[in-house]
Amino acid sequence: MRLIVVGFGVVGQSFAKLLLSRSADLYSIYGVKPRVVACVDSKGSSVSSAGLDLQRLLDVKKSKDTIGEYDKRSSHLDSTHIIENVDAEVLLELTPTNLNDGEPGTSHIISAMRSGKHVITVNKGPLALAFPSLLELANYNGVMLRFSGTVGGGTPILEFAKRCLKGDRIISFRGILNGTTNYILSKMEEDLTFESALDDARQKGYAEAAPSLDIDGYDAAAKLVIMANWIMNMKVTMKDVNRVGIRKIKLSDIQRAHKRGNAIKLIAMCDNKCLIVKPTEVSKTDPLYVNGTLNALTFSSEHSGQHTIIGRGAGGMETASAVLRDLIEIKDATFEHR
Amino acid sequence: MRLIVVGFGVVGQSFAKLLLSRSADLYSIYGVKPRVVACVDSKGSSVSSAGLDLQRLLDVKKSKDTIGEYDKRSSHLDSTHIIENVDAEVLLELTPTNLNDGEPGTSHIISAMRSGKHVITVNKGPLALAFPSLLELANYNGVMLRFSGTVGGGTPILEFAKRCLKGDRIISFRGILNGTTNYILSKMEEDLTFESALDDARQKGYAEAAPSLDIDGYDAAAKLVIMANWIMNMKVTMKDVNRVGIRKIKLSDIQRAHKRGNAIKLIAMCDNKCLIVKPTEVSKTDPLYVNGTLNALTFSSEHSGQHTIIGRGAGGMETASAVLRDLIEIKDATFEHR
Repeated sequence: MRLIVVGFGVVGQSFAKLLLSRSADLYSIYGVKPRVVACVDSKGSSVSSAGLDLQRLLDVKKSKDTIGEYDKRSSHLDSTHIIENVDAEVLLELTPTNLNDGEPGTSHIISAMRSGKHVITVNKGPLALAFPSLLELANYNGVMLRFSGTVGGGTPILEFAKRCLKGDRIISFRGILNGTTNYILSKMEEDLTFESALDDARQKGYAEAAPSLDIDGYDAAAKLVIMANWIMNMKVTMKDVNRVGIRKIKLSDIQRAHKRGNAIKLIAMCDNKCLIVKPTEVSKTDPLYVNGTLNALTFSSEHSGQHTIIGRGAGGMETASAVLRDLIEIKDATFEHR
Repeated sequence: MRLIVVGFGVVGQSFAKLLLSRSADLYSIYGVKPRVVACVDSKGSSVSSAGLDLQRLLDVKKSKDTIGEYDKRSSHLDSTHIIENVDAEVLLELTPTNLNDGEPGTSHIISAMRSGKHVITVNKGPLALAFPSLLELANYNGVMLRFSGTVGGGTPILEFAKRCLKGDRIISFRGILNGTTNYILSKMEEDLTFESALDDARQKGYAEAAPSLDIDGYDAAAKLVIMANWIMNMKVTMKDVNRVGIRKIKLSDIQRAHKRGNAIKLIAMCDNKCLIVKPTEVSKTDPLYVNGTLNALTFSSEHSGQHTIIGRGAGGMETASAVLRDLIEIKDATFEHR
């Protein structure tokens, strides 16, 4: 399978390392032989129909800060031009999430689907803002759109919901979809104020300098939108989420909850009608009560009860493994053997 | 699909209720049209090639205590005779677990496979004692052997491990596979002695009068064997498990662990070499730290980190939903439309 990789940050580089370490048994076990025929980062591009040398790509990225230095002849091609014109089966859209207008991810995805390419993305922006129309476009063009890495990092939350409960029905789900806010709230349980906990999260690299995406609940809301569309067949976008962040949570709120045997968590929930992200008291005996940067989701089903899945919701290699899962799924569904 | 149901206790009756409530949409969503052509319980049998009336079967079982009263003409047929001679695609082997010799489950399963029938079972005995040879027999006869309900009740632990981590490798797993012992240990954390906690579990119906299967770790060991064979491709049986139960756990042990921020749990673990069931200290911040009758399993994978899945490990309707999942899987794999 020929891949175009757009975005070569932590996830892109982890994916290249994963392919290097697994190339032999990916073919023997799954019949997948991925070949990266083009790669684009924010500063340059490189194209090779024979397949780029992934180790050299990683070395160039490390030493020169852009894969544009890989091959001068193809270093200044525009990402859309590459997506439309390079022969490939799958686009890996790995650019950073932008929840304002979804760009450049949305344009990349649309270009790929219009030129008959399957799309795997870890970019929440396009899906959070336009899931229903993007899925329609994928169906119209007869291509697959997969996005396991957008929710839960490497933890297969979407797969669990879609594949493990056949014959049953998921009625609702709720959980912790953002590791940064969970880290901050966990630290506040250790008696840090919100500001100190946020500083601590920044120092550890869990929170950005401008942390609104996490602490105001946008990131959790984006993931909730993706889950509601994919699992519950709702046709919703970011504007349908009733969203409250954790900015106003005080240490005294945490302490009051503690006295009741509870903790405050930023809970995202969906019951097939409403989408809500808000700080919510959770019993410390609830499986959802997890600390640090962990994510946790509880699905309530009609017949088989409640199931909780817990995992690290982030990480370069973890998310890269979700991209690989999607790739194998596309291979299995399309029976391509290249 | 024509089904022979052997064993009509809680799970069998729940399965009949599930089919009654879902018959229409099972066909429209999954293309499955199950028809129970024979049913056997410990006191009698009933056969109808046109399909038994499930509501009447449930009513007869309730009022007469055996489905042998459903139709006098077919009330005394032997289970093996029925399995071998009644035309059907799938045997549902739902008799109680017997970890001494696996009977009558093992004979039922072998008879079914030899006469070309797929098998779904919730009976741990045959698998715990003879998994490798039963799987070989299934392959030899070109039939499927499925057993989702043997581990985790309705919680899809086996499916999660097999289907949600494609492209990755599970290196090891550990967890709580027995709800009764977890209930007892949870009660001991509330300062009950082992004996009082066991009495409490008996009163709630979680523990049998002769509770050795649970508290000596046999049930957890049986599930561990099934998981090791199915998930890790090990060829092992009960005798390969290093097993210690919870009978000797004292309140003082629990209290000492508590001072270290830990709890004692009956942990089953597998690292691709050893199979161990034994009381183990678990940090109260570990996702495996769940209370009451919950089950919890943590899988450690090569690339995507640790994933924990938590659910109620038992229940008639929950386990029946696992049987239905298996049935849909067999349908999907064999493309039968009957």
